Amino acid sequence: MVSSEQLLDILGNETRRMILELLAEKPRYTTEIASLLSIGQKAINDHLRILSESKVIEPYVQKQTRGSPRKYFKVNEKFRLEFTLTPGYFEVYILDSEVDAKSIIERFPEFGELQKQVEQIETIRKIGKYGQICRDLGDEMVRLRKAKMYVESLLAKVRIKCMKVIDSLNLNPEEKRVLFELVTAEGNITVEEISVKCKIPEQETIRVLNELKKRGLLRL
Amino acid sequence: MVSSEQLLDILGNETRRMILELLAEKPRYTTEIASLLSIGQKAINDHLRILSESKVIEPYVQKQTRGSPRKYFKVNEKFRLEFTLTPGYFEVYILDSEVDAKSIIERFPEFGELQKQVEQIETIRKIGKYGQICRDLGDEMVRLRKAKMYVESLLAKVRIKCMKVIDSLNLNPEEKRVLFELVTAEGNITVEEISVKCKIPEQETIRVLNELKKRGLLRL
Repeated sequence: MVSSEQLLDILGNETRRMILELLAEKPRYTTEIASLLSIGQKAINDHLRILSESKVIEPYVQKQTRGSPRKYFKVNEKFRLEFTLTPGYFEVYILDSEVDAKSIIERFPEFGELQKQVEQIETIRKIGKYGQICRDLGDEMVRLRKAKMYVESLLAKVRIKCMKVIDSLNLNPEEKRVLFELVTAEGNITVEEISVKCKIPEQETIRVLNELKKRGLLRL
Repeated sequence: MVSSEQLLDILGNETRRMILELLAEKPRYTTEIASLLSIGQKAINDHLRILSESKVIEPYVQKQTRGSPRKYFKVNEKFRLEFTLTPGYFEVYILDSEVDAKSIIERFPEFGELQKQVEQIETIRKIGKYGQICRDLGDEMVRLRKAKMYVESLLAKVRIKCMKVIDSLNLNPEEKRVLFELVTAEGNITVEEISVKCKIPEQETIRVLNELKKRGLLRL
């Protein structure tokens, strides 16, 4: 699995973003991409290799009606990335599993209607109808984005205040960092994850955790 | 306003990401950042300038109890970025306005309880309590992320199908691209926005729009 750091490095390149935009439309093959972007095939191949290695895209071979089979690239369906930056909150979130529609509709029953509309889409040939469905879904996206940003802003407030409280404790900088990550974790967190987030070696992280436990600041 | 392209360029740099991570924690000044990252002040200054110009962070001057006032940098509160990549969908979304809590709680009444908890936080000194609130908010974030991904996946289905329908029409590639952007826009879209999305000059976009209108494929 690619790290969020590597991913932002990958996306920091304009050509790679253009390739991803083309592949988000539909699967394509190397010479097709090279010609659409007017960039040499060798360079495109290098980018496709980097993107494939990071599992953002995946190659597959497709038989042709004429000539030899051709290698296509497509965006990995299970791959989703989200990046959030706001005071108190800097996070890159990568989801690489599928979303369970049933449990979502249980939590948000109002999506049932949207789902029905989308299910009927195979039978629709009228362009205008697609526009309507896209706008309905778009409205829902805006609402969800705002809701997510709202919860994020609550979380940011809690994190900022929590940092102040921790700052006032008689701890060294490493202990403060570890305690902060531990307290503000949004779910269960492993020693390895704390070590990555705090940029402290794992052995040292364990030592700090034991120290915090000794002081009665946490239960392990 | 910074474009999503520029922003990914900005975030593609590891040092800039480390600076943002530090500033997401709390406002800091140049020498402080340089010393925390063990990077020369000149280089840090260059990155801070780029980040400030893009409005991702903003500088402000703060009086010191001793000595001359000091220039601090903080993450722009109104700034949020979200990036989504999935088949049928490649989008960078930048929000630069504040979220209206009232309208969100109207739509998602269940957030009222979370808000109350966060409002009481000023009075809380117990670290464990922060952990509980973070986990509750984290659970809600996970649900919202999944819900958003679900709606995105519906949208992606509609977009892919819509592209197939448009592909079957007797149109040239530019006309197809413009028609697709127009139909799949999640809300109202301006000529300028279509021109940027399709990478076609504005004058040419207008010509294509008129051509599509003539063919009865859209109403303007």
